[in-house]
Amino acid sequence: MALHSMRKARECWNFIRALHQGPDAAPVPQKDAVKRIFSGIQPTGIPHLGNYLGAIESWVRLQDEHDSVLYSIVDLHSITVPQDPTILRQSILDMTAALLACGINPEKSILFQQSQVSEHTQLSWILTCMVRLPRLQHLHQWKVNAKVQSPLQLFFPSLGTMGLLTYPVLQASDILLYKSTHVPVGEDQVQHMELVQDLAQSFNKKYGEFFPVPKCILTSMKKVKSLRDPSAKMSKSDPDKLATVRITDSPEEIVQKFRKALTDFTSEVTYEPASRGGVSNLVAIHAAVAGLPVEEVVRRSAGMDTARYKLVVADAVIEKFAPIKSEIEKLKMNKDHLEKVLQVGSAKAKELAYPVCQEVKKLVGFL
Amino acid sequence: MALHSMRKARECWNFIRALHQGPDAAPVPQKDAVKRIFSGIQPTGIPHLGNYLGAIESWVRLQDEHDSVLYSIVDLHSITVPQDPTILRQSILDMTAALLACGINPEKSILFQQSQVSEHTQLSWILTCMVRLPRLQHLHQWKVNAKVQSPLQLFFPSLGTMGLLTYPVLQASDILLYKSTHVPVGEDQVQHMELVQDLAQSFNKKYGEFFPVPKCILTSMKKVKSLRDPSAKMSKSDPDKLATVRITDSPEEIVQKFRKALTDFTSEVTYEPASRGGVSNLVAIHAAVAGLPVEEVVRRSAGMDTARYKLVVADAVIEKFAPIKSEIEKLKMNKDHLEKVLQVGSAKAKELAYPVCQEVKKLVGFL
Repeated sequence: MALHSMRKARECWNFIRALHQGPDAAPVPQKDAVKRIFSGIQPTGIPHLGNYLGAIESWVRLQDEHDSVLYSIVDLHSITVPQDPTILRQSILDMTAALLACGINPEKSILFQQSQVSEHTQLSWILTCMVRLPRLQHLHQWKVNAKVQSPLQLFFPSLGTMGLLTYPVLQASDILLYKSTHVPVGEDQVQHMELVQDLAQSFNKKYGEFFPVPKCILTSMKKVKSLRDPSAKMSKSDPDKLATVRITDSPEEIVQKFRKALTDFTSEVTYEPASRGGVSNLVAIHAAVAGLPVEEVVRRSAGMDTARYKLVVADAVIEKFAPIKSEIEKLKMNKDHLEKVLQVGSAKAKELAYPVCQEVKKLVGFL
Repeated sequence: MALHSMRKARECWNFIRALHQGPDAAPVPQKDAVKRIFSGIQPTGIPHLGNYLGAIESWVRLQDEHDSVLYSIVDLHSITVPQDPTILRQSILDMTAALLACGINPEKSILFQQSQVSEHTQLSWILTCMVRLPRLQHLHQWKVNAKVQSPLQLFFPSLGTMGLLTYPVLQASDILLYKSTHVPVGEDQVQHMELVQDLAQSFNKKYGEFFPVPKCILTSMKKVKSLRDPSAKMSKSDPDKLATVRITDSPEEIVQKFRKALTDFTSEVTYEPASRGGVSNLVAIHAAVAGLPVEEVVRRSAGMDTARYKLVVADAVIEKFAPIKSEIEKLKMNKDHLEKVLQVGSAKAKELAYPVCQEVKKLVGFL
């Protein structure tokens, strides 16, 4: 079992390492190899550049390449940390607007709100009865998020809620509920995908073959770094407001943020992520938003110093986001439309989830 | 907060202690003081004498005394320990038959199956995000059930699943989902009721007054002891088959079990629970099934030795259970009817649960 888990983890890692060897798109699986793709995004309001290049852009591509694709705004996950209800509600609609503006097409993929499909928590409870406390406590995310990093935890109660501890089980439910076969994952989710796979296998062992064991999917997710600290991921919650570029930032804000981006004392533009994190992050962003290979971007900036180059990257980002920003503004003016999109999507998701949940209930002995 | 909890625990204890001072019915609250009563029972198949006198009998009385009463067959709770699906399904129907035969009337109370009302797990997830790990780890039931009784638990992984750890939160959801005001509880549930009360108060503090803080209800629940060990509760899972009398036992089985009931070397029949547990248990059972005060039962058995008295009690139990047993047999022959009862009851429960759950979702910011 341990060996098996290690093998699975290694497979996932190999997939993900391949993604990050360069900013170019890595190959996706053949259409016939993929039956159903599921992914979720927390309603954090307006996405930033990291969300866009790291996930949303590949979501748009996946919906074009595959027949059955589900994207969930996972609001149930968002309450594992404190939320203001009014802001949360607005953030759910803002995320919907942003995803639509970025190109998520409800005719090609099912875009839905997790809390509107009651089967997620129902299956989650059943899976909760199949996992033990130490398994969840040993997950890296819990250790970090709950600041439980020492065997003294008994004497220093952790800061995290039970939701923060058990959300990987809900995540497993999100995926298995649709009998998903493939899940695009970030490297911080590898341990969680192992849990999903183990839960699918445990369920199948106890109740008979039922869930496909979902695989990590190979997409071209790019890791965008903070503009102020190239060793950290770009993050919505970064206290340094200059670190993170939002899709809806004004051109002036974008220019200011790139102008202040942390680079080194070498003025030349090169792509050396290991030794020159700051400028390489700019090159990677530039290549991604311009749709060019890194080498081409570097070639075109020959002779340019980093100060000048920052403005070039800022321009490319402004140009990329301009139509998205204007579409978001338009969509946000029609709250009814956004709510309707979520309702229709959630009804479609429920159509898939309900029969699976009923089957599960029969297998467990409830029906 | 600690003081407040202690006060609440003391109130609960006082209620419960009052119940157990004798086998007579203690007063129930005035009709106008009680708005909605909720209770649940695990689908353990056919109830035993302890279930009947300890809970079901008082449930029958409560449905006559109050307007809004819900009784749930809590199948979601039953999977916190391993279950065989076929046996579980049969047990759900058997429990339904037993409750109906004992006098639960679906016209007077709402009898339903927990897993058929999806709102239970939805609210449970929201409450899971409002409680921390140490709070659940310190509950007595978890410590006993998961055999986590030492601070070395980190080094000896516990045996319980996450379901066994978090089920008190699901229990809180069961109760709060119907805005229940009163809950009949056994003494082993006092800590859990404190959790329910704390969760109601935390929710109200964060989102505004919404849930009534439910109170323990004073009923005449009787604690029936094992026939083979008067220091232990009568239990379905007792390895000694002679310890537990099932409602559907044959007259011969009932006679045999009472004949072998553990008593002491004094032949006289007296009611002295502290010093003569065995015979006092028989007196208490006799009084309860005959509907007589303990003193009357003792008076009537004057001059009788315990060997003879055991047969008198057995006869009283046989007489009490005969019509119930025959009704259960009749009901069990009509599986469709039992399923229909649960479906209709669950639909009624959902009618109450749905609007509450929608309101909760609005308050949390999902809608």
